[in-house]
Amino acid sequence: MYSGLNVHLVPHTHDDVGWLKTVDQYYVGSNNSIQGACVQNVLDSLIPALLANRNRKFIYVEQAFFQRWWREQSEFVQKTVKQLVKSGQLEFINGGMCMHDEAATHYIDMIDQTTLGHRFIKQEFGVTPRIGWQIDPFGHSAVQAYLLGAEVGFDSLFFGRIDYQDRAKRKGEKSLEVVWQGSKSFGSSAQIFSGAFPENYEPPTSNFYFEVNDASPIVQDDIDLFDYNVPDRVNDFVAAAISQANITRTNHIMWTMGTDFKYQYAETWFRQLDKFIHYVNQDGRVHALYSTPSIYTDAKHAANEAWPIKTDDFFPYADRVNGYWTGYFTSRPALKGYVRFTSGYYLAARQLEYFKGKSSSSPNTDSLADALAIAQHHDAVSGTEKQHVANDYAKRLSIGYTEAEKAVAASFAFLTKAANKTDGRTPQIKFQQCPLLNISYCPASESDFSDGKDLVVVVYNPLGRKREDVIRIPVANENVVVRDSSGKEIQSQLLPIPDTFLGLRSYYAKAYLGVSPSVNPKYWLAFSAIVPPLGFSTYYVSKAKQAATISDSHREYRSGSQSDTFEVGLGNLKLIYSGKEAKLTQYINRKRKVKESIDQTYKFYASYGDDFTDDAQASGAYIFRPNGSSIPIHYNKKSPLTVFRGPIVHEVHQKINSWIYQTTRLFKGKEHAEVEFIVGPIPIDNGVGKEIATEIKTNLASSKTFYTDSNGRDFIERVRDYRKDWNLEVNQPVAGNYYPINLGIYLKDKQSEFSVLVDRSVGGSSIQDGHVELMVHRRLLNDDSRGVAEALNETVCVSDKCAGLTVLGKYYFRIDPVGEGARWRRTFGQEIYSPLLLAFTESEGNWGDSHVTTFSGLDSSYGLPENVAIITLQALGNGEVLLRLAHLFEIGEDVNLSVKSSVELKKVFGNKQINKVTEASLSANQERAEMEKKRLVWQVKGSSPEPKVSRGGPVDPEKLIVELAPMEIRTFIINFKH
Amino acid sequence: MYSGLNVHLVPHTHDDVGWLKTVDQYYVGSNNSIQGACVQNVLDSLIPALLANRNRKFIYVEQAFFQRWWREQSEFVQKTVKQLVKSGQLEFINGGMCMHDEAATHYIDMIDQTTLGHRFIKQEFGVTPRIGWQIDPFGHSAVQAYLLGAEVGFDSLFFGRIDYQDRAKRKGEKSLEVVWQGSKSFGSSAQIFSGAFPENYEPPTSNFYFEVNDASPIVQDDIDLFDYNVPDRVNDFVAAAISQANITRTNHIMWTMGTDFKYQYAETWFRQLDKFIHYVNQDGRVHALYSTPSIYTDAKHAANEAWPIKTDDFFPYADRVNGYWTGYFTSRPALKGYVRFTSGYYLAARQLEYFKGKSSSSPNTDSLADALAIAQHHDAVSGTEKQHVANDYAKRLSIGYTEAEKAVAASFAFLTKAANKTDGRTPQIKFQQCPLLNISYCPASESDFSDGKDLVVVVYNPLGRKREDVIRIPVANENVVVRDSSGKEIQSQLLPIPDTFLGLRSYYAKAYLGVSPSVNPKYWLAFSAIVPPLGFSTYYVSKAKQAATISDSHREYRSGSQSDTFEVGLGNLKLIYSGKEAKLTQYINRKRKVKESIDQTYKFYASYGDDFTDDAQASGAYIFRPNGSSIPIHYNKKSPLTVFRGPIVHEVHQKINSWIYQTTRLFKGKEHAEVEFIVGPIPIDNGVGKEIATEIKTNLASSKTFYTDSNGRDFIERVRDYRKDWNLEVNQPVAGNYYPINLGIYLKDKQSEFSVLVDRSVGGSSIQDGHVELMVHRRLLNDDSRGVAEALNETVCVSDKCAGLTVLGKYYFRIDPVGEGARWRRTFGQEIYSPLLLAFTESEGNWGDSHVTTFSGLDSSYGLPENVAIITLQALGNGEVLLRLAHLFEIGEDVNLSVKSSVELKKVFGNKQINKVTEASLSANQERAEMEKKRLVWQVKGSSPEPKVSRGGPVDPEKLIVELAPMEIRTFIINFKH
Repeated sequence: MYSGLNVHLVPHTHDDVGWLKTVDQYYVGSNNSIQGACVQNVLDSLIPALLANRNRKFIYVEQAFFQRWWREQSEFVQKTVKQLVKSGQLEFINGGMCMHDEAATHYIDMIDQTTLGHRFIKQEFGVTPRIGWQIDPFGHSAVQAYLLGAEVGFDSLFFGRIDYQDRAKRKGEKSLEVVWQGSKSFGSSAQIFSGAFPENYEPPTSNFYFEVNDASPIVQDDIDLFDYNVPDRVNDFVAAAISQANITRTNHIMWTMGTDFKYQYAETWFRQLDKFIHYVNQDGRVHALYSTPSIYTDAKHAANEAWPIKTDDFFPYADRVNGYWTGYFTSRPALKGYVRFTSGYYLAARQLEYFKGKSSSSPNTDSLADALAIAQHHDAVSGTEKQHVANDYAKRLSIGYTEAEKAVAASFAFLTKAANKTDGRTPQIKFQQCPLLNISYCPASESDFSDGKDLVVVVYNPLGRKREDVIRIPVANENVVVRDSSGKEIQSQLLPIPDTFLGLRSYYAKAYLGVSPSVNPKYWLAFSAIVPPLGFSTYYVSKAKQAATISDSHREYRSGSQSDTFEVGLGNLKLIYSGKEAKLTQYINRKRKVKESIDQTYKFYASYGDDFTDDAQASGAYIFRPNGSSIPIHYNKKSPLTVFRGPIVHEVHQKINSWIYQTTRLFKGKEHAEVEFIVGPIPIDNGVGKEIATEIKTNLASSKTFYTDSNGRDFIERVRDYRKDWNLEVNQPVAGNYYPINLGIYLKDKQSEFSVLVDRSVGGSSIQDGHVELMVHRRLLNDDSRGVAEALNETVCVSDKCAGLTVLGKYYFRIDPVGEGARWRRTFGQEIYSPLLLAFTESEGNWGDSHVTTFSGLDSSYGLPENVAIITLQALGNGEVLLRLAHLFEIGEDVNLSVKSSVELKKVFGNKQINKVTEASLSANQERAEMEKKRLVWQVKGSSPEPKVSRGGPVDPEKLIVELAPMEIRTFIINFKH
Repeated sequence: MYSGLNVHLVPHTHDDVGWLKTVDQYYVGSNNSIQGACVQNVLDSLIPALLANRNRKFIYVEQAFFQRWWREQSEFVQKTVKQLVKSGQLEFINGGMCMHDEAATHYIDMIDQTTLGHRFIKQEFGVTPRIGWQIDPFGHSAVQAYLLGAEVGFDSLFFGRIDYQDRAKRKGEKSLEVVWQGSKSFGSSAQIFSGAFPENYEPPTSNFYFEVNDASPIVQDDIDLFDYNVPDRVNDFVAAAISQANITRTNHIMWTMGTDFKYQYAETWFRQLDKFIHYVNQDGRVHALYSTPSIYTDAKHAANEAWPIKTDDFFPYADRVNGYWTGYFTSRPALKGYVRFTSGYYLAARQLEYFKGKSSSSPNTDSLADALAIAQHHDAVSGTEKQHVANDYAKRLSIGYTEAEKAVAASFAFLTKAANKTDGRTPQIKFQQCPLLNISYCPASESDFSDGKDLVVVVYNPLGRKREDVIRIPVANENVVVRDSSGKEIQSQLLPIPDTFLGLRSYYAKAYLGVSPSVNPKYWLAFSAIVPPLGFSTYYVSKAKQAATISDSHREYRSGSQSDTFEVGLGNLKLIYSGKEAKLTQYINRKRKVKESIDQTYKFYASYGDDFTDDAQASGAYIFRPNGSSIPIHYNKKSPLTVFRGPIVHEVHQKINSWIYQTTRLFKGKEHAEVEFIVGPIPIDNGVGKEIATEIKTNLASSKTFYTDSNGRDFIERVRDYRKDWNLEVNQPVAGNYYPINLGIYLKDKQSEFSVLVDRSVGGSSIQDGHVELMVHRRLLNDDSRGVAEALNETVCVSDKCAGLTVLGKYYFRIDPVGEGARWRRTFGQEIYSPLLLAFTESEGNWGDSHVTTFSGLDSSYGLPENVAIITLQALGNGEVLLRLAHLFEIGEDVNLSVKSSVELKKVFGNKQINKVTEASLSANQERAEMEKKRLVWQVKGSSPEPKVSRGGPVDPEKLIVELAPMEIRTFIINFKH
């Protein structure tokens, strides 16, 4: 039965790009008291170990570390390593900067960080990684499989963590290895051979570890010494191999010979593996070989086997009965928000950098690219790192942002400079930006304008379509007027800034910037900006003789008031509130014929602590384990609803309690509600951790079913207390139904479709039909025993006084007739990801006389179709441009928009002459055609016929029109004529 | 003040040749759960690390490990290593097989194990180690300094452990570095520059450790990464350097950069040391350099400084108030006994191997040489290893012994074969030996002789002088007769074997051999053998018609008996006992006019346990910490003295209690008493460990002063509660006065000299004037927190039933007129070390007719002078012979014998023609003349004029007479003409 069993020994190290230590600490091996780990040791010691025996192989994964090492090496070592890569002894696997998370990451970030790694590998070594290797992330996404797997050109994808119930079933039916079709739209055209490991990504049993000082018995084969143990060790090996063969199809099994930060002295492993291979093969019962996931994949492929099929994804992940890893979907919401903010900024900044022309010697987006790439690590944006490491990620993002901000400012200075209106003496315009606008901190706009200077606001739209959106900036007083590019005064609205916002502003400015703002702005100034695609408009804010429109403010609607209900909304969408109950009651969009009961509340889950029992499982950074059902957070009756009304926006303010403040906004011309919440510091004085959720309740008969996105891209159907792949034993009725949300969540019944979109990665669910909940913040007092060894208790300190972290975030909701929700989710989702980018400067004279005030990167009349987005437009530094176009809709999602669409490249690059367009793989490290040609074809067991898959055709080099079928992302390298 | 301060960084690893793990386990890195340690890693990783930077240096010490590694290496690696040694990057330091203990080791073993290492190094690398490096042994001996230091050709000696009070004083007066004159006889002619480290043999502070995963801050000098810390680390370095400079003479200090089993991945240390050297020297306050103890020694020498002088030794060692490391002088007395037994056997076996001609393809003494060398390690014979490691040493000795036994048997077969009396058909005689004669187990002699066969006993004398000694072998019954070589019947005596001996015999035969002897011998047969120097005589034991002389047995002398006292003794020496008190009372030697009161008893110290107080310090394998004064062990009044008298020996048997049995023997023609004790199992049922001492009390007015040997060689004056080098603060009035004893201990007053000699290494003292005590056994229930992490509770098991270890041992005492004791101590001491070696075979006919029955390796009429011993006579395998001659007396020790003496080499090798005699250094790795020439000359501070040192002159190549001055050991390589 086991004759010819091949044991593929894959020597590997799993090097977290930050977790218990920072990425730099892991690299150099400092802070070892926290964790003994030094990647420099691994790579330094690897090279002689590989040279010592040409049969030895090793895979290296995390390019953030490899690149640090590579730039330190001598030319000689680099040459040696190139040889090792060429000979196949050293293989790059996965190949992104990090092994990104799959729950809390946005697909654009996943693509970017993978591209960064892959292009480096291609450039230095001329190779393209073939294998996805997501061995540690805590659950696995459909987008990872089909987009970051198949579309990257990978032939297989391996991972370690799947639900324990799922794993048990798969072992029994030998279906740990499957063909995964992660995309409804692409079906088998984007399938990938995928293997979940039998246990984890470590050696098969506890006695095959060979790090320096590891306790596994070494193979003692020197007959001149005592304790000769070759027969024992060969038996151990064969037993472990047979055990794995029993749950595996074909006569090939893989052993992951390594684990976290191992091979610090690589020789210790190879010395033993050499011996195992020698003596096991001499024994002959099984065959052992040095291998890599590529070799293993090829062997699997050659076996000519039909594989079980897998669709959807592997979320949520539980490693044991009460161990649902669904807490990290929300852990560190501020870091998650900062990652999303900088990610959107990076997309826009690259466009602007490209418009000006990128230079490596002046400020550019490279360090932001690096910081963002690292932040996608599965212990970074996931929130599962130690606090000091979270600080390190934020610091890197901040440094990267600050440099990108300079590049953006330089680009604006370049783009606004009117060639015919300036001379050499005109000083370079200094543009300021306001990254802390979220806490109402924007020194540029808080000027009192009394010196007669205009505030010039350049508003950039990174989207490929013209866009109208409301700008909100803090201003010092009410005597302001807003004019557009042409100088025409436009409507604006002043909104008083509540004390809660001002308190947040001053506390966090002090905590994070070390400054106490001298000015306290009194108002938010809101006005509507209209901006061309990939372009900017200019607005001016100046001193006015009289006050601008101050919002009409009502602090009524206390309980007992006569007029019990009131309506809010400027256009089609109206929200009806009960003043007495101080709550939202109804959602009405007459134009769309939608009228639904609705309620929106906050609640919390008391976190399970350490109870010292056998099934002790605290809620922690990874794990969400509520102690019982959720507990409602009652509205503070003494503090009434306050409504602000004006021509631009209606706002309903609710101070729910001393640590939750909420603003609901309805903008002119928009048909969704925006909810901004300020949550924190979460009280822990009763010694119990709390996980805060907001819940929006409708009466939709959603039949246990809801939909959440996969990394901001495809929506996947979720059914409460149910898994498609096995009969779920429900142990955690809440935590076990949580899913990661990056774009949004929706549910529907026969009439309506209720959608909620988010501004960052969060966890959420629908625990009752018609209800949607999002977990917005967590503050915990126990560690959940998955390694981080810290309670997730984020605090912010001013002068040594620390308070729990306050989180400010937004979500957006909308109800549509059934079948009509996708349009908003997709197009507005793109707007959330890519908000308008504001830059400020002051002008004494008439700015417009001497500056360019409007600009579009596209051909003047051109805009992208509604269902397509430019997700990358980036100068590659060699005169080439990287362009990625993404169709935003899945098949069947929208009657009108789930169709093939076209983009005219000539008009996208209206001012340039395209020389050559090369379609590339998603990570832009090989030609798409080459990738298609190499792709392994896998047989699927009993697959049913699938609908015909639609893809855009080849790009005609003359017409240069790119077709995009639903969900298609096409990547191009574009050369221009000079 | 510190300008020009040079910090010598000495990268090193301290690789115990067995301690918590066995030597093989340490080498291959198995059993890592006990201790993470793998010497193979150290040496494997070292080579590329040294090649990577030609400034890097490393020292390697323990040749037992190095030789294991060396024989595994390819020719290419060997060539590389030879280059590294040649260039000085890799230096062999110390260079013995192990870093031997200095308390429990015999000087002959120290020489042998050093020679084994040194000659290997010379042979493979052509170099001679220059430096003694005894960094871990627990106290330091005079013999180490002058004999294994200066006489080996070392230019300096470094060590880590000296008494904490001594160290404090030396730091204050900058006298950690001294010139040590360890020998009274040799004075400055055998002095050595010696340095005690300021703290230990580790890096200067806790933050300079750079093993894989060590927590010391690495030097982070990459400005592209966070946590750049070069200035901080340079400051740390400079501060540590200045601190050490403050207690050190000259502007050179040494840092021992390593510790136990470090450099498993050598690069981790060197990477940091490279950086320290670079940045510290860039800083310029102090100068850092890669160095070795040799370079450091040369720098010290070049400084032209006069050094404080040190005489005697560094015993005992205490590392803190109650931490006297004097327990290990006795720990594992059975192992210590086994080491001594095999050591003596090895000396004799090499002689016999030489007589026959050594062959590497037939059984030889090499594996015994290896086992003995390893057993000298400072955690081997010291008794401070874990039990499983002690077992490993014993196993190696046993394997080595078994092979040597075959070589000896073959040699006897060769030597007894009469060339003219045998033909080719004569079968090879199989000689049996009886290594378990100590437990009365000797199958060869236990035959019942009823088949008419004679038992042939070949008695070999390894000493250079003719010798008469009593043989004792167990026999099955009384009808035996003994004849000498000429066939003449000689006097013999039968001694009934008491039950205690028989019990011991059957228990240990079962426990160690797995056999239950079928015969229970009834008697010891004793007879006197006369044996030529380096030769043998033959005796025959046969069946007799009537019984041989059975000892006259008296079981009288119970208390209350009329005749209260009785006398025992066959010749000049008489011991007087009180029957009533059942004890020895008087020692009388009329011929020598000695008459002294004497008493001899047993007592025990209750061991201090774990009391959980701040000064908790249990007695353990290392530490002797008695809980209060000793407690007498009272003689069991119900069990009388039993006296056996006969023509050969008088014996007094005393069953002290259920676990102590003692036999006192007075032999015909000898003027000392032999005491054989059987101690154990020590009872521990009251939960208290016990340390058993025997005490011999005289009335000598010894004025606190007594003398103990240094490694069986020089005697050193000890004064109770006093140290010559500092004002002793007495905290442990017993433990702090214990000293190691390998040969003996004596004390004296104006009339008499009382000497006690031992059969193995033990601890002992004179806690009251006139009294001598020896600690003979220890059984402890706590670990003493010095790393071994086991209580020293030795047990022996039969079929899973275990009992505390029983120890059988001997000591010898004698009282001489003052000034006359040395002769016995020296000459009989040599006899104890080299007992007669017995080999047995059976003969049917007349053995003497067809066999050589007497033999001497010397010229027939020649014998060595009484004051000289052959301590090595060994075939080197290349036709050369290694000969070491040792003068046995110190200057002034004996009026007649402390004089220059001569040995005629022509007569030593009477049957061979000497071609060439080359005098070598003690470890036989260089010519003595060459060594003398290279020797560094050191200046001593305020040294007083010393008596003229006497040394033997050069050997005239014609006369070939070797002169030996007192204490001189001369080493020769001898070539013969063919």
